[in-house]
Amino acid sequence: MTQPSDKALVPFVSVDNMMRLIHHVGVEDMMRDLADYIEADFKRWELFDKTPRVASHSDVGVIELMPTSDGEAYGFKYVNGHPKNTSEGLQTVTAFGLLADVYTGYPVLLTEMTILTALRTAATSAMVAKHLAPKGADTMAMIGNGAQSEFQTLAMKAIIGLKAVRLYDKDPAATEKCAQNLAGLGIDVTICKTPEEAIEGAQILTTCTADKQYATILTDNMVGSGVHINAIGGDCPGKTELAPGILNRSDVFVEYPPQTRVEGEIQQMPEDFAVTELWEVISGHKPGRTGDRQITLFDSVGFAIEDFSALRYIRDRIKGTDYFVDLDMLADPDDPRDLFGMVQRAKA
Amino acid sequence: MTQPSDKALVPFVSVDNMMRLIHHVGVEDMMRDLADYIEADFKRWELFDKTPRVASHSDVGVIELMPTSDGEAYGFKYVNGHPKNTSEGLQTVTAFGLLADVYTGYPVLLTEMTILTALRTAATSAMVAKHLAPKGADTMAMIGNGAQSEFQTLAMKAIIGLKAVRLYDKDPAATEKCAQNLAGLGIDVTICKTPEEAIEGAQILTTCTADKQYATILTDNMVGSGVHINAIGGDCPGKTELAPGILNRSDVFVEYPPQTRVEGEIQQMPEDFAVTELWEVISGHKPGRTGDRQITLFDSVGFAIEDFSALRYIRDRIKGTDYFVDLDMLADPDDPRDLFGMVQRAKA
Repeated sequence: MTQPSDKALVPFVSVDNMMRLIHHVGVEDMMRDLADYIEADFKRWELFDKTPRVASHSDVGVIELMPTSDGEAYGFKYVNGHPKNTSEGLQTVTAFGLLADVYTGYPVLLTEMTILTALRTAATSAMVAKHLAPKGADTMAMIGNGAQSEFQTLAMKAIIGLKAVRLYDKDPAATEKCAQNLAGLGIDVTICKTPEEAIEGAQILTTCTADKQYATILTDNMVGSGVHINAIGGDCPGKTELAPGILNRSDVFVEYPPQTRVEGEIQQMPEDFAVTELWEVISGHKPGRTGDRQITLFDSVGFAIEDFSALRYIRDRIKGTDYFVDLDMLADPDDPRDLFGMVQRAKA
Repeated sequence: MTQPSDKALVPFVSVDNMMRLIHHVGVEDMMRDLADYIEADFKRWELFDKTPRVASHSDVGVIELMPTSDGEAYGFKYVNGHPKNTSEGLQTVTAFGLLADVYTGYPVLLTEMTILTALRTAATSAMVAKHLAPKGADTMAMIGNGAQSEFQTLAMKAIIGLKAVRLYDKDPAATEKCAQNLAGLGIDVTICKTPEEAIEGAQILTTCTADKQYATILTDNMVGSGVHINAIGGDCPGKTELAPGILNRSDVFVEYPPQTRVEGEIQQMPEDFAVTELWEVISGHKPGRTGDRQITLFDSVGFAIEDFSALRYIRDRIKGTDYFVDLDMLADPDDPRDLFGMVQRAKA
């Protein structure tokens, strides 16, 4: 059998190779690089083909495709969300992604994205904090110490120079896990017994809890003036973390309003609740933080363009490395009209 | 590093393994099996989550995602369409597909689908002909002798007992290729110099040409009473093969009206042009062929459920074989909350 042409082979980054790549680059450097790619794509936001995710819901979860394109590359992420999985020893969220060349339609990268999504989510939060958090912010309250907590902390360290994190989770085992994972990584870690204790002296308040319900992780009176709130956990219909009063006192910044109004903290608010699109701040069209007493709030839900940026980064970064294998995924007959002949000749 | 659990590994069928599987099963048996799976899914059509494809258009082509679900499994196909690719030595269409478990959200199959799509398209045509073509039909005119032509012919042989095919293509080299590929496969092949010659004595007229334009491969006066027309090539906006007069004289059967009205032959007709949904015929709710003089017309565009059936078949058929490899595509930490710890431990 003749070998398939180069273009018929799709580079694939496995979970194992993604972890090797992370250690090769360094997790903080990689999140810094990812933040640069994400920031660059926010600056050219208007170029992108934007569509809300295509979701298939069932009683126990959701499977989503998140496609986007900048006209040169096309990317999509497959991601599921199944809260009940944890109790069965499975992941709540798994993901993989694909990048393709718009000119030929040929895929150019297939990659695991469970780990990559954790990195891009944290890199996005830190890149946004760079624009919105008070100058010199060096202490973060990390409320919810699950899978995203260490990535959030290290991204803030790498990108805005965070020095200290104050951990709280209703499950002390989660906090213990997070503290152990962060030990020796150059960040001052304080274990807190209450959310109130966690936010003491913090200029950045990050909420990232897992309960799928309208929860109140931060009450109105806990939030003082001048802070930046990085709200990660309220990210699907029926799941929020902040008291509405906080939203009323804050300037709220979002990725893509049609998606955030359904999935984010602002699903609690009227449809015309005022928000600022982040790309407008990042590209210099609108102001971000305008005063010392202002509360800025990033209502993060995660958008396809951030995955696209991450896919672009991986495509660029694996060139010349051995952190991928080539998959024989695309049929490539010598004569495009002779697909049957190719199949028949393979019999020999 | 600990090995990932079984569920974190996704079976992958490469192009090479798909061809091995086809020869293991036999191409005709495989199309018969595929037709059974497709027919079974048409019978439970109402169960499916149906949505038109999610398309991303550019000046030179389109990239589409075609998702669907029956509530137990979720499938999607990635497929591109780039007519200009052929002149650059690339395929016009490449495809791959994925099947996932709705209950867990975990992918259970990744497979090449360029070849598989060719098989399912032909299997669908033959399964539909079984319901609509005149009884005892044994001769087919095959107009357009490109990549789909041999598959169409062999599927009709396997599923409805076709004995003879009459080939025509405006490019004699394509006809020659098709005739050579079909030689010795138990079908009587006649090379024809005109479309008129090709349809002589044929009860089934299959059109499958590649020009992206409003073409007239069959004119009204070429089509006599009592035939079944299997119209494959008119499958995207701006691409048709039949004179409108033929549509007016035929009973037209379609897969999914919202998609076919945009992409099929009936894009030439008014929005309220009467069509019958195939699933209603196949499940016995509506009659198919009702008389000897009736012209039946399958306006084929290809729908996500046919890909879903094909994915189900491959998932079932590769069990216990070595026609796949396991891809380490899903991150699987022992503790779902400890994704970071898994990454850190991989450093060692």
